[in-house]
Amino acid sequence: MTIAIPEIPSIDDAALTARLQHLIDHKTKPLGALGRLERLMLRLGQILGSEAPALHAPQMLVCAADHGLAARGVSAYPSDVTWQMVENFLAGGAAVSVLARQHGLQLTVADCGVARAIPAREAEPGAPLLLCCRIAAGTQDASLGPAMSATQCSEALHNGVTIVRGLPGNVLLLGEMGIGNTSAASLLLARLAGVPLEDCVGAGTGLDAAGIARKRAVLQQALDANAGATEPLAALAALGGFEVATLAGAVLQAAAERRVIVVDGFITSAAVLVAARLAPHVRQRCVFAHRSGERGHAFMLEAMEAEPLLDLGLRLGEGSGAALAWPLLDSACRVLREMASFESAGVAGPSMS
Amino acid sequence: MTIAIPEIPSIDDAALTARLQHLIDHKTKPLGALGRLERLMLRLGQILGSEAPALHAPQMLVCAADHGLAARGVSAYPSDVTWQMVENFLAGGAAVSVLARQHGLQLTVADCGVARAIPAREAEPGAPLLLCCRIAAGTQDASLGPAMSATQCSEALHNGVTIVRGLPGNVLLLGEMGIGNTSAASLLLARLAGVPLEDCVGAGTGLDAAGIARKRAVLQQALDANAGATEPLAALAALGGFEVATLAGAVLQAAAERRVIVVDGFITSAAVLVAARLAPHVRQRCVFAHRSGERGHAFMLEAMEAEPLLDLGLRLGEGSGAALAWPLLDSACRVLREMASFESAGVAGPSMS
Repeated sequence: MTIAIPEIPSIDDAALTARLQHLIDHKTKPLGALGRLERLMLRLGQILGSEAPALHAPQMLVCAADHGLAARGVSAYPSDVTWQMVENFLAGGAAVSVLARQHGLQLTVADCGVARAIPAREAEPGAPLLLCCRIAAGTQDASLGPAMSATQCSEALHNGVTIVRGLPGNVLLLGEMGIGNTSAASLLLARLAGVPLEDCVGAGTGLDAAGIARKRAVLQQALDANAGATEPLAALAALGGFEVATLAGAVLQAAAERRVIVVDGFITSAAVLVAARLAPHVRQRCVFAHRSGERGHAFMLEAMEAEPLLDLGLRLGEGSGAALAWPLLDSACRVLREMASFESAGVAGPSMS
Repeated sequence: MTIAIPEIPSIDDAALTARLQHLIDHKTKPLGALGRLERLMLRLGQILGSEAPALHAPQMLVCAADHGLAARGVSAYPSDVTWQMVENFLAGGAAVSVLARQHGLQLTVADCGVARAIPAREAEPGAPLLLCCRIAAGTQDASLGPAMSATQCSEALHNGVTIVRGLPGNVLLLGEMGIGNTSAASLLLARLAGVPLEDCVGAGTGLDAAGIARKRAVLQQALDANAGATEPLAALAALGGFEVATLAGAVLQAAAERRVIVVDGFITSAAVLVAARLAPHVRQRCVFAHRSGERGHAFMLEAMEAEPLLDLGLRLGEGSGAALAWPLLDSACRVLREMASFESAGVAGPSMS
């Protein structure tokens, strides 16, 4: 099985960009006074191809899976926490559940390969949805060889494509859960962006210095055991996770549909890194919600020349940072649509400089 | 006329703080994984004196006034922009109007001394309110002597107290408008915090390097002309503005009522600086929304040991940064109230570190 990477053209449109910039510059404010929000306004207009962009039916997709590497002690928490947290998402008690309710984000949780399968259930209208797209009960131990086969990797990517095709709206927010998945993200960062492993490895859910040293040693073994996996798809299969591969597929499909993609922290950024190596214009459709407190994320953002919106030291994942940043995207669109121009409001421009 | 500074006791409560920290630490997340949001959760719980804090009826108060210093060419815009922007706030076309609508913030605009008085009008339900609490048609030129008399300053402070007494809810968001008011804020920062004038002076609405040099020279004249005004109230009268003094009164009253105070950028921070010099515990009730792109704001925040939520290079004022940060406060309260604990959700804790 192979995956057909959707065609993702550039959204560059000099005429639209000029019109958007003109609109932004003539709003009733000093030139550039809304700072980073102005670049967000421009970007959202470009992605949605509109001078009056509007976001509708925002979808929070949380992909969950387990990792063979977790057995090597790379996380402070046991793998059981993956399914327990998925149950928590569905019951409405997790951070992302609370934030999705606050902002009216439809929450969809995908079991992409949790060790203990999540039982299907009927969802109330408006409640979180559970999708089953399990590849296996967790990946293999990447320190011994590939985490997944090429076929499994293609299936996970395809699942991501299929999930997004079934979701309404024009915004996809990315979330994830998987004990051990900062390790997968660190490995992908090291392999695909050439960042030294030491800079890629952090505390994850809360390792101490000795734990981080142990994690780094295990991850070096994983890089060595998969030395030939240098191409993006091969690296994803060898070093990634089912949730990361599913998210990468979701990102490719969302980009192909020209949805706005709101990237959360370190793990979802790794999925975007893979997708952008397969189709570089993916990055144009991405808004990076925040700079995580996890060590590797700053390097990941740098590798993608990304400028995050928030810098709150978050390191929870789940999509919590994407949800916290969401109102800023909504604000940017509303300001672009609703704020008056100097002319329309009868406000004088600068008298001098 | 003198102003009675409301008594503002400390909100320190070791028992409540310990209970809040316990709640935060037992939510279903790694310890500290919500970063800055956790400190916000703690702070909001402390201010509202509750383990289940809830924000209601948030009020955005935008105080507007003109400045005698504006005639000295300290701003890129003419003073007429003050009343024009007030009309824009009331018509719903300004950034703060758009953001207040988005978030359900009641917008109240106070004419504290705009050069051209704002005509009173009937407001539709839910529409912005206009309050008239004019002291005079703008302050005097502070480069020649005090911007206002002690009596005017007391009246403005008292107006702020009265305004807040009349507003519902338990959150006050601060905004302002006044051509020339970055100059007033710079002067108060230099005088009350001892920051070198050069570090206090920035581009405001968009001065170039020559304009900034001219502004700095005028502000040095104002400091020299008011050399004796070293106490907080005297400095406020000599160097401040009617909107800054009204805001300082509003901050004192909001703090006395134990409301959450959401501070916007450079000018509203100057009002808080004055209020905190009069009653130090004011600072405990403040949440600083963002770090402004205006040069002096970083020094102002440092002088108050404040840790802002956003850093988006905003430099618009109006309360726009406070409105943009507002959803984070709401999120913090909701997470504290609604997020499950490890125990309640049946999620395992760390297995190792």
